[in-house]
Amino acid sequence: MLHTIRKIGVLTSGGDAPGMNAAIRAVVRTCAFHDIKCYGIYRGYEGMIEGDFIEMDARSVKSIINKGGTILKSARSKEFRTKEGRAKAYEQLTKAGIDAFVVIGGDGSFTGAMVFNQEFNFPVMGIPGTIDNDIYGTSHTLGYDTALNTVVDAIDKIRDTASSHNRLFFIEVMGRDVGHIALNVGIAGGAEEILIPEEDLGLDRLVESLRRSKKSGKTSSIVVVAEGDKIGKSVFELKDYVDQNMEGYDVRVSVLGHMQRGGSPSCFDRVFASRMGVKAVENLLIGKSNYMVGMKNDVIELTPFDQAVKGKSKINKELLRVSDIMSI
Amino acid sequence: MLHTIRKIGVLTSGGDAPGMNAAIRAVVRTCAFHDIKCYGIYRGYEGMIEGDFIEMDARSVKSIINKGGTILKSARSKEFRTKEGRAKAYEQLTKAGIDAFVVIGGDGSFTGAMVFNQEFNFPVMGIPGTIDNDIYGTSHTLGYDTALNTVVDAIDKIRDTASSHNRLFFIEVMGRDVGHIALNVGIAGGAEEILIPEEDLGLDRLVESLRRSKKSGKTSSIVVVAEGDKIGKSVFELKDYVDQNMEGYDVRVSVLGHMQRGGSPSCFDRVFASRMGVKAVENLLIGKSNYMVGMKNDVIELTPFDQAVKGKSKINKELLRVSDIMSI
Amino acid sequence: MLHTIRKIGVLTSGGDAPGMNAAIRAVVRTCAFHDIKCYGIYRGYEGMIEGDFIEMDARSVKSIINKGGTILKSARSKEFRTKEGRAKAYEQLTKAGIDAFVVIGGDGSFTGAMVFNQEFNFPVMGIPGTIDNDIYGTSHTLGYDTALNTVVDAIDKIRDTASSHNRLFFIEVMGRDVGHIALNVGIAGGAEEILIPEEDLGLDRLVESLRRSKKSGKTSSIVVVAEGDKIGKSVFELKDYVDQNMEGYDVRVSVLGHMQRGGSPSCFDRVFASRMGVKAVENLLIGKSNYMVGMKNDVIELTPFDQAVKGKSKINKELLRVSDIMSI
Amino acid sequence: MLHTIRKIGVLTSGGDAPGMNAAIRAVVRTCAFHDIKCYGIYRGYEGMIEGDFIEMDARSVKSIINKGGTILKSARSKEFRTKEGRAKAYEQLTKAGIDAFVVIGGDGSFTGAMVFNQEFNFPVMGIPGTIDNDIYGTSHTLGYDTALNTVVDAIDKIRDTASSHNRLFFIEVMGRDVGHIALNVGIAGGAEEILIPEEDLGLDRLVESLRRSKKSGKTSSIVVVAEGDKIGKSVFELKDYVDQNMEGYDVRVSVLGHMQRGGSPSCFDRVFASRMGVKAVENLLIGKSNYMVGMKNDVIELTPFDQAVKGKSKINKELLRVSDIMSI
Repeated sequence: MLHTIRKIGVLTSGGDAPGMNAAIRAVVRTCAFHDIKCYGIYRGYEGMIEGDFIEMDARSVKSIINKGGTILKSARSKEFRTKEGRAKAYEQLTKAGIDAFVVIGGDGSFTGAMVFNQEFNFPVMGIPGTIDNDIYGTSHTLGYDTALNTVVDAIDKIRDTASSHNRLFFIEVMGRDVGHIALNVGIAGGAEEILIPEEDLGLDRLVESLRRSKKSGKTSSIVVVAEGDKIGKSVFELKDYVDQNMEGYDVRVSVLGHMQRGGSPSCFDRVFASRMGVKAVENLLIGKSNYMVGMKNDVIELTPFDQAVKGKSKINKELLRVSDIMSI
Repeated sequence: MLHTIRKIGVLTSGGDAPGMNAAIRAVVRTCAFHDIKCYGIYRGYEGMIEGDFIEMDARSVKSIINKGGTILKSARSKEFRTKEGRAKAYEQLTKAGIDAFVVIGGDGSFTGAMVFNQEFNFPVMGIPGTIDNDIYGTSHTLGYDTALNTVVDAIDKIRDTASSHNRLFFIEVMGRDVGHIALNVGIAGGAEEILIPEEDLGLDRLVESLRRSKKSGKTSSIVVVAEGDKIGKSVFELKDYVDQNMEGYDVRVSVLGHMQRGGSPSCFDRVFASRMGVKAVENLLIGKSNYMVGMKNDVIELTPFDQAVKGKSKINKELLRVSDIMSI
Repeated sequence: MLHTIRKIGVLTSGGDAPGMNAAIRAVVRTCAFHDIKCYGIYRGYEGMIEGDFIEMDARSVKSIINKGGTILKSARSKEFRTKEGRAKAYEQLTKAGIDAFVVIGGDGSFTGAMVFNQEFNFPVMGIPGTIDNDIYGTSHTLGYDTALNTVVDAIDKIRDTASSHNRLFFIEVMGRDVGHIALNVGIAGGAEEILIPEEDLGLDRLVESLRRSKKSGKTSSIVVVAEGDKIGKSVFELKDYVDQNMEGYDVRVSVLGHMQRGGSPSCFDRVFASRMGVKAVENLLIGKSNYMVGMKNDVIELTPFDQAVKGKSKINKELLRVSDIMSI
Repeated sequence: MLHTIRKIGVLTSGGDAPGMNAAIRAVVRTCAFHDIKCYGIYRGYEGMIEGDFIEMDARSVKSIINKGGTILKSARSKEFRTKEGRAKAYEQLTKAGIDAFVVIGGDGSFTGAMVFNQEFNFPVMGIPGTIDNDIYGTSHTLGYDTALNTVVDAIDKIRDTASSHNRLFFIEVMGRDVGHIALNVGIAGGAEEILIPEEDLGLDRLVESLRRSKKSGKTSSIVVVAEGDKIGKSVFELKDYVDQNMEGYDVRVSVLGHMQRGGSPSCFDRVFASRMGVKAVENLLIGKSNYMVGMKNDVIELTPFDQAVKGKSKINKELLRVSDIMSI
């Protein structure tokens, strides 16, 4: 027997990402379009456990499509990882009459939703919101495109000063487990080398590459380093190594940090969020549950949660080769 | 028998688009990577006919990946549409020892290349560079993603003033034949209605929709209009019509114009340009000719010129529905 | 006898400008700092007449310092220009217990405040908010610095496409009565000529100048035209004239329009707004009235309303000379 | 007896700043306007010693007004601090026929120019180019306005994520000796507290202030810290201290770093650079020497080098008070 959905909850969970507000808006308005009530759940699963809900109508989400962050706030919840925590959450949802929810977040958030669904047979849908693009089953995650542009803009600025002073810069960008951001901004920022979690370039080859580029007449260079780069050294350690093993370079370091998560979402992310919000709600309404909405070949499609959380998205090896050729 | 390629020419043709410089850089550096000489051809086919060439090495394209416009300049050439013009061009290329070229431009430019290839058996490759995204055989054209962000940024600014004054704005965006830009920026900019060449909304339904939105409590509205909208009215005529047929709206018009073509390319467009430049040169080197490089399902692939120039890319009808739901 | 101020109203009036929200925030928080109540008045003098007020505390203005437009909305009010309208407004203010107000707007808004003050001995202060920088008694108006950057960014984009195609562009920017915006963005955008309300260059000298620049080797040019330029021709008429009287130029036109009013305020405008808000409230509290707050020699100072509304700010003639030299 | 100036050199020296290219352009074009030859000197005083010069005409500086960094590159020169180094530089200038120079840089660069002038009676002029705004005798330095906007934009992004997660952020901005950047971006970014070199807030008052703001209902906070803040702790040490002495805050750190130096210059900086370039060259031509060009009360004026290098610009204490009131 199908649930008949009358009230849908929406929450943002885990690290925030640009476009989350656009997705909230899309969920709320699609509910309004189908005459379904919609409730915002504050601070992710924390707020779900506490019953921190607010009713949202179509007008309540005006002027947020272009705002970074999330108006519903986000959090990581330890309590929701316990059976007791989830039971409390279920109680709160039931009390409020919410009979399905859409969670916007990363794979941790989806795992939570999946377990919750199993325990309470509660309809859930996920929208992948994280700048890292590290989720299996979707070519893009929400916020990734915006973050790429934010990082490239910062690299362009650093390049101004790098090339004015003939400097070598190590720039650390986000990406603990996957190198998507590093790989793309490295190409787009004209980086000499790109260090990512998936490939171990090795310190020797790095130094060799920098020597070669210096010999070829380049007077300044940028090396983009993902947080979780395989060499396993921080940008500060990399700087020290190069200082000790190369001459003639003034080496500097820049850690871009949290600004990568903020900012007004790109056109792509706003449209992507809107499409996913529609898809999530309309699939709940026809009785589907336990899926992540995502994009495959430019089409919005569903992937079962258990598949989405098992895999990691793979980097495109073609890009490594493009980067090598471009940095000649 | 295959040509053995020793010198490749590269030109930009037709309307300029952000990312053209990144594509030029990619062609030049891929040539350098394979020890092939590369020549820049100025002002599109005009410069080809005049022999306005310049040798380009890897260093000559430094610091251009983030620049809008095209350092090779662009033009539309009437003379190249004549047999005599093309014969002159062939002579110039031959004299300079150029034995293949990559043209970055739109379908008109590809038609020129295709005819030239037929007449002189001259190896040619095309890279789709136009903000309109109107080319068959590729999900994206170079510059399209950047233009979307430029337009959305402008709409965000107009919305600030629109909502401060409870105004209705008609905003004209580029797109004579296809509504891709209008459709995407309309959703991303939170437009009330979107008028595109592919669908005739009709004046009555437009006014009806605006009345409904006013009644629903919206105090300001934005209508995005593609240059070639099906209603066949300019934004100024639309304003007049609404002025005469609706009360209570202060109606304004904004024509975004040529700024849509400029600006530093987005991360996507820079990476896309780099990938296509590699693909174009390496396929010429293995004897391929007469193809447009493009993207299908996130993969860089080739489409024969005759297919690319015959079709037009189609808008995604799903987006019309998403727009309808979002503007509730 | 001094009024003892217990409740201060704040409104935005006339055309909106970036930084108005920052000024509202500053007024509200300075009131909170001094334990004075603060009321927002919606839609300028219209809302004052209708009694459309809202109490605002320090938290109610959070996260608005970086938003374009005005959360209190703005309008031009015909009724407030009548004695009856002003009497209604006075009644509404009295009923709500508001005993002073700060109006953020242009000289029309200040005239209204001045008359109101004379009729009802009601304490008023003004903050100059308009992108045109056309107000006497202050070196800057709020929003002007932001608008300059917005326009220069648009001109940079147009220059990309202008120089790719060897084109001449006429770009119309805001400024009906004064040429501040045109003059500054003309220099910053590298314009060939700048047409402003204060100086009549003449069509002949314009064409002569363009010819000279073409001869000197320039392949593309930009002419910045203020709305109210002295020649008295629209950018479209200028284009026609040049088309008929010059050869070898592909002439295009761009009217930047309302996007010039929007956008997130610059650092300067946010700090300027904050300083003026403090000054306005604290001067009301010590019994001053009937002044415009403004900036003179980098210091925040008061100018009596009757002086502020009588004069117009003058352009800096030095800039005309700098522009001439730079466009050699 | 006056030198008759026939060839003017121009160099950028010390840390780079946005607007340096606009200043180079202005010097070159003012020379062209007065039929004086102009030479670019590469890499500051280093290039002067090595005779690394290039002749520059009006066209050679096209399309650089909007570029960050410096096309002439910059460096700090130890050799120029020695009498031998300066003698070599003089020899190189003489050999090239350069009989005056304009140096764009900070007070160290001006000291070098002043000593050089004393030793060789060589006409010199300075243009203050540094983002820190730390030079006496001018209300602004070139690049300062641009850097303010760059930093505020980054803080806005960090605020998105800070407020989504109820976090406290310590953001380190440039400014070793003076707090101008910190003070202005702190106000513009809505910071809770601002730590600068000129004022010792003290750790206790910092924690007290954060406690008070938490109690007042603020859920996230930003503290802007100048590099050389008086407390003498790095942002990482501040984080540790707060972690140990406060509860209920998730504290994060962001060091903005070198991106603050780059980027396309603001409208203000472009116009300011143009005005100073004209002033510098025209004053050399009428026989003046040994001055820094700068801005006082919105007018471009000269300050003798010995005055400029002796003092430091002072922060505006009014801003400290505005910040206190705004963070209520």
